[in-house]
Amino acid sequence: MNPRIDIEQLSRELEQLSLFSDAPSPAVTRVLWTEQDMKARAWLKSLALEAGFLYREDALGNTFIRLVGSQPDLPAVGTGSHNDAIPFSGMYDGTVGVLGGLEALRAIKRSGLSHARSLEVLMFTAEEPTRFGLGCLGSRVMSGAIELEKVRALKDANGVDLETARKAVGYTAPLESVRLPKDYYAAFVELHIEQAPLLEQQGLQIGVVNAIAAPASFFVHLTGEGGHAGARLMLGRRDALLAAAEIALSVEAAALQSGAMDTVGTTGILEIHPAAINSIPSQAKLGIDIRDTDGLRRDQAVQHVLETIKTVCQRRQIEYRIEMMNADPPAQSDPKILEAIRQAVQDLNFSSLEMVSRAYHDSLFMARISPMAMIFIPCRGGVSHRPDEYATPEDMARGVEVLARTMLNLANL
Amino acid sequence: MNPRIDIEQLSRELEQLSLFSDAPSPAVTRVLWTEQDMKARAWLKSLALEAGFLYREDALGNTFIRLVGSQPDLPAVGTGSHNDAIPFSGMYDGTVGVLGGLEALRAIKRSGLSHARSLEVLMFTAEEPTRFGLGCLGSRVMSGAIELEKVRALKDANGVDLETARKAVGYTAPLESVRLPKDYYAAFVELHIEQAPLLEQQGLQIGVVNAIAAPASFFVHLTGEGGHAGARLMLGRRDALLAAAEIALSVEAAALQSGAMDTVGTTGILEIHPAAINSIPSQAKLGIDIRDTDGLRRDQAVQHVLETIKTVCQRRQIEYRIEMMNADPPAQSDPKILEAIRQAVQDLNFSSLEMVSRAYHDSLFMARISPMAMIFIPCRGGVSHRPDEYATPEDMARGVEVLARTMLNLANL
Repeated sequence: MNPRIDIEQLSRELEQLSLFSDAPSPAVTRVLWTEQDMKARAWLKSLALEAGFLYREDALGNTFIRLVGSQPDLPAVGTGSHNDAIPFSGMYDGTVGVLGGLEALRAIKRSGLSHARSLEVLMFTAEEPTRFGLGCLGSRVMSGAIELEKVRALKDANGVDLETARKAVGYTAPLESVRLPKDYYAAFVELHIEQAPLLEQQGLQIGVVNAIAAPASFFVHLTGEGGHAGARLMLGRRDALLAAAEIALSVEAAALQSGAMDTVGTTGILEIHPAAINSIPSQAKLGIDIRDTDGLRRDQAVQHVLETIKTVCQRRQIEYRIEMMNADPPAQSDPKILEAIRQAVQDLNFSSLEMVSRAYHDSLFMARISPMAMIFIPCRGGVSHRPDEYATPEDMARGVEVLARTMLNLANL
Repeated sequence: MNPRIDIEQLSRELEQLSLFSDAPSPAVTRVLWTEQDMKARAWLKSLALEAGFLYREDALGNTFIRLVGSQPDLPAVGTGSHNDAIPFSGMYDGTVGVLGGLEALRAIKRSGLSHARSLEVLMFTAEEPTRFGLGCLGSRVMSGAIELEKVRALKDANGVDLETARKAVGYTAPLESVRLPKDYYAAFVELHIEQAPLLEQQGLQIGVVNAIAAPASFFVHLTGEGGHAGARLMLGRRDALLAAAEIALSVEAAALQSGAMDTVGTTGILEIHPAAINSIPSQAKLGIDIRDTDGLRRDQAVQHVLETIKTVCQRRQIEYRIEMMNADPPAQSDPKILEAIRQAVQDLNFSSLEMVSRAYHDSLFMARISPMAMIFIPCRGGVSHRPDEYATPEDMARGVEVLARTMLNLANL
C-alpha cells in the first residue's frame, strides 16, 4: 500500500503554526528565538512525539525528527525546511517543507512500507536573515560553509550576540557540535512552494528543481553630516539619505542592465538616523540582496553597485562601509535524486516542470555535504513573503505525495 | 542700576536641563510628554518658584512664568521659547530662550528697576514636530492658527491621540482654554541661537531678526507591492522604496532648482515596510520639509515635488497619499520691537546684523496675536539639531542682556 497523505491534518497544522506569530493573522512574523518562535518549536516537537518519532535539537536549535529504518546505521534520507517567517509574511514559505515532511514520514509509517535507511525531517534554524542579517544560518553551520568565529561575532539589531541569544533560550552545547559529517545523509530533498508564478502560469503541478541560484547580500553603512533642515543651506550638505536613495536606485539599474531576466536586485532595508522631519539625515544603512542563476553575472551586478556606492559617496562626501554578509555559489541538484523525483511524478501521473530556484533555500548549503534536490509546488500568483501567500491543499497533497515516494525510493537504494 | 546677568547660573541650568534626556550626553532627546520631558517641566517650575515668580500651565502644558509689573492690568511683555529636543540633538536650541528668558526676568527683579507691564517667560509645548508630526503645536493653538478638530485628530507613531496623551500627564482642561486673546501681549521677543553661521562668519554678536521664513512640511505615504526578493523578477515590480528614493532626490532637486540660496528641502524621515533584506518594500513613508524666506517660492518648490510624486508613482504603479502637515506664511517682525532691540544693542556697545530666520520658531505664530521680533546669538559653525551644537557663555550673556533691556524698554512704553 502506498503512503496516503492526510491533507486535512497538514492544512490544520499549517493554520496552527501560523498563529505563533508577532503579526496579526493572516500576516506572519516569527523571528529566531523570540517567544513565538520558541512556542512554535515546542509545538513541533509535540507533533513529533504524538507521531511516535524520535527527535533531537542541536546547539543552534536545528531540529531533527527521525523515523528509524530497518538498517539504522546507513546514512539517512533527509527532508525539511524552515519555520521562521520574515516580518509580515505568509504561512507557507518553509513551513510546507517542515510540516509536509513530517506528514510524509507519518504517511510512510502508516503505510507500513519498509525502508532500509532512516528517514528524517529537519527544521532548520533561521533560514531567514531577519535577526542576525545572515540567511540559512542553521544549514551554513551544519555544512561548514561559514567559520564559527564569524557566527559567534554575529549581533542582532539590539547588539545581542548569537552566543548570548542561543544560550538564553537553552541551546548551550558547543557550536562545533552543529557540523554534520559528509555521510550523515545519503540524500536530501526539500519540498517548498515555488515563490514564483511559472507552475501556475503553465498549469503544472510539480516543479523538479535542478539548480538553486546564487544569492549575495550586503549592508552599506553611510555617514554624512546632520543639521537643521531649515537653517542649513543646500550647498555643502552631506545628506546620508540622498546617497542611500541613489544607491537603492543603482541596485535596480544593475539588475536591469545585466540583460538577463534572472538577475534580480532589491534594497529591502533602509534605515536613517536621526529620523526627524526637520533634521538632515546624518546616517543611513541599506540592506541589499542581489541574485542570479549565474554566479559570475551575479558578481558583475554586485560590482556595479559597489562602484556606484564609491562614486556617489565621493561626490556627496559621505563615508561608507560595506558589510558583506554572503556571496554564495549556485548549487546543482543530484541526478540520482532528480531521477527519483521524476519517477514519483510519473507513477502518480502528475504534470511537472524542470526548473531553477531563484530563491535560495537551506538545500543550497545541504548540497555541500549531501546529494540534494528540491520539489516545488505552485503558489498563487507566485506571491511569497507576503500575508496573501497561498498554496492549495491539493497542490500541497501532491507535493507531499511526491516527496514521500521519492524518500521511500531513495531509502531503499 | 542696569540688569546684570548671572551667566554662571544660566550655564549651569542649561547643563542640568540637558541631562533630562533619552539620549546619552552630549546628545539630547527630549520628546513631548515623555518621562524626561515631564521631569524637565517640573524642574523648570521649581526654578520659577525659587526666583519668586508666579507660573501657570495651560491645557497643553505651555508654561507661563510671570514677574508682575506695577500696572498688572496692562498687556504683558513676553519672551520665551521651547524646551523639547528632537532625537540626538543638542542643548541650546530653544532652551537658551527659556532659561535665558528666566534669567532676564531674574536680572530685572534683582536690579529693582520698575516696569509698568508684567514680564513673562513662556515655555512652549512641542515646538519640535517629533511626537505628533506638527511643529509649534503650543503656539499654533495659542494663536488660533490651527483648528482644534485637527489638533484632537493628531496621533503619534504608536497611535496614541493627543487628547489621550495630554490627559495621561495631567493636562485635562479643555483645549479651547489654550487660545490667547489678541491683547494678551503688548510685545513678544524670542531669544534663540542662530542655527546658521552668518553671525560667526562675520564676527558679529547679535542678530536682529526682521522676518521668519515660511516652512512647509508633509508626509508621503506610498503603497506598492511586496514579494520575495529572489523569486520575483524585476519586470513589473512595484517597489515602494524605489519610488521613495526618486522622491527624496526630487526634494533636493526642487530646492537647488529654485535658484535662491534661501530655498531648502529635506527628507528627514523615510520608513519602509516590511523592512527585511529579502523582501521587496511594499510600503514607504517620507517626511519632507521645505522652507524659504519667500512664501511663493516655497510653494513652487513644494509644487515641483508634488508633481514628481505623481509622475514617479504613475510610472512605478505606486499608490500614494499626501498628508499636508503645514504650509505657513512667513512672518514680519514689528518695527517698534526691532527699534527697542537696536537701542539695547547700541546702549551695550554690541555689534549686530539685521537678518532673516530660516528656521521657524514659535514666534512665527505669536506674530498672529502680538507684535513680535527675535534676537539671535551666534552658535559654533552654525550647527544645530546635533549633539555638538554650542553657544559660548559670553554670547549667551550678551543675548540675555539685550533681551532684558529690550523687555524693560517695551514694558515702560
